[in-house]
Amino acid sequence: MAAVAAEAGVAKATAARTLGNYGAVSPEARARVLEAAARLRYRPNSLARSMTTGVTHTIGVVVADIGNPFFAGVLRGIADACDATDYTVIVMSADESIAKESSAIGVLMDKQVDGIVLASAAWRPDQTAHIQEAMSREIPIVLVDRIVPGLELDAVVIDNRQSARDAVRRFVAVGHRRIAFVWGPSAPERPLERERLLSVTDTWLWSSAERLRGYFDALDEAGIVFDPLLVSNCRLNEAATVDSVRAMLALPDPPTAVLTTETTATVGVLRATRDSRFAYPGDISVIGFDDSSWASVMEPPLTMIAQPMRELGRVAAELAFARIGGDRGDAAVETLPATFNSRASVTAPRPQVSLSDDDGR
Amino acid sequence: MAAVAAEAGVAKATAARTLGNYGAVSPEARARVLEAAARLRYRPNSLARSMTTGVTHTIGVVVADIGNPFFAGVLRGIADACDATDYTVIVMSADESIAKESSAIGVLMDKQVDGIVLASAAWRPDQTAHIQEAMSREIPIVLVDRIVPGLELDAVVIDNRQSARDAVRRFVAVGHRRIAFVWGPSAPERPLERERLLSVTDTWLWSSAERLRGYFDALDEAGIVFDPLLVSNCRLNEAATVDSVRAMLALPDPPTAVLTTETTATVGVLRATRDSRFAYPGDISVIGFDDSSWASVMEPPLTMIAQPMRELGRVAAELAFARIGGDRGDAAVETLPATFNSRASVTAPRPQVSLSDDDGR
Repeated sequence: MAAVAAEAGVAKATAARTLGNYGAVSPEARARVLEAAARLRYRPNSLARSMTTGVTHTIGVVVADIGNPFFAGVLRGIADACDATDYTVIVMSADESIAKESSAIGVLMDKQVDGIVLASAAWRPDQTAHIQEAMSREIPIVLVDRIVPGLELDAVVIDNRQSARDAVRRFVAVGHRRIAFVWGPSAPERPLERERLLSVTDTWLWSSAERLRGYFDALDEAGIVFDPLLVSNCRLNEAATVDSVRAMLALPDPPTAVLTTETTATVGVLRATRDSRFAYPGDISVIGFDDSSWASVMEPPLTMIAQPMRELGRVAAELAFARIGGDRGDAAVETLPATFNSRASVTAPRPQVSLSDDDGR
Repeated sequence: MAAVAAEAGVAKATAARTLGNYGAVSPEARARVLEAAARLRYRPNSLARSMTTGVTHTIGVVVADIGNPFFAGVLRGIADACDATDYTVIVMSADESIAKESSAIGVLMDKQVDGIVLASAAWRPDQTAHIQEAMSREIPIVLVDRIVPGLELDAVVIDNRQSARDAVRRFVAVGHRRIAFVWGPSAPERPLERERLLSVTDTWLWSSAERLRGYFDALDEAGIVFDPLLVSNCRLNEAATVDSVRAMLALPDPPTAVLTTETTATVGVLRATRDSRFAYPGDISVIGFDDSSWASVMEPPLTMIAQPMRELGRVAAELAFARIGGDRGDAAVETLPATFNSRASVTAPRPQVSLSDDDGR
């Protein structure tokens, strides 16, 4: 700005008033400043400006995994809300790592975002120092997809427990009793008995734990005794899922239905089903989180639980805008409904599943 | 830092030396400063620091569509490279809009990134003012996935033309002559004759135009006369694709094979095939860009062209680091090979496809 003032032959204050659009400037001085600014390719430094005004009109988003289509949908919703309000979004991925998440929050504070939308990998209080640091600086933070226990923050989530319960009820309604849950928590020991499983899930991502609780709810109300062999404890990737599900299908009493909690889990179950020469859906019914366009062109098309990804993002951004605008009300959790896209992957179990020939591969 | 110095009862220069890790400070003063910094929750302001050093150790990425799994893979590769060099990445999505891309570049310049990796929506010189502005400020820019004609910039791409040509050759090799191309350029007029089509593609995304040129290459070398009815000119979404492909399948001489250029195009083709009661792959062979885990659990699994997404991102980031490090060599285009994942979606065409009963749906 000093260079523009010198080029225009006016005082710095005059250049500042002209370029900042405030105060009185003579038409002639104004024209000289604008010409000089154009000649010098002047670009207002929004950081310097934000140091004065304290507002950057930018929100930061930290997602757990930028490669997950679920978060791509959430980001789309955040972008929609920002487009409508003239905010810009900058996005960082934490790859499900607390250390990277902490670093990302630090960068966003340095870049002076006005607010942060966060899908956190944290699940216990001693992992939240970075979040509390941002809170102590009064940077509005809204959680999305995942509640972090112990933090008084706005959050936008779906009712994971009820969605999982409803899915299992659909299996029960057509006669299934051997119902598997993929992905359970990764654990070196296995199988995990119910009590141990629930204590593991206390230290687990809120959304995943809620889905497992919904599975238990539906088993309990149907009087089905929980079989720990039907919850996967594998690592959360496709290859490990295939191995884990193949082991379930090799049981003397294999599952006839599977609830999957992620797209990769669904793909792993379908591959294991084929590898084990089980028929889909004749031998194995499937319902999964989250819906995708592929699921609807599978043969037969998959019944899926569709999370309102875009809506989750939009509402989270709007809560952040309200906080940036000065809303000091109590932290609130907004729960959005998921929807079932019923297709053709749930059939009644065969009267007797008997595979004397377990060909393994 | 001034507050820390006051709290510690030392000179500002002493606090600066301690917190900036330079120069000599007595052990006692150092301890007092560090204690005061902890008490006051001192956090180095990296923006203020970068105004001094001119380096923020941040690179910005602008992707055309953050919801596209292709770009998610590219971002993963960029993140890998940044992890290895202690850079952080901030990401912005331009939603295939030049205006949003321009705004994103502006924000990244304001946030003082050291370099930018860009998948641009620009395809002609008068759309590149924002890129040239960043170039004039000597901010290193590396293009990824898409070359922008007329700009002397480093770029990392795949050989789209050869990949498309190879795919069509595979169809030709097993006897196909009626080979469709989905997605061609969106256009209100249709069908487009070859000359008109090529002139449209001159004003089209480089990567898409290259794929169409590869399709022509393979038709020409096989002596197949181009039929404009076999190139889609629909809008680039699933519903429009289904309509467009259904119209092709209703032709007296429908295609027996389809090359698809995007995941959504592939899903649209599969849905249209089913809607039209054509058998997949008996009536319609399919090869598509880009591979996904779903493609391999389709029945039968799809033959797909896998772009080295992660590698594209990694190489682009490394080129950016080299430029940030002072490399002043000529701009270079790195072309990475795509790979074919051969599965079971290509079969020989039936001797005679004859559908007297065109039932529409």
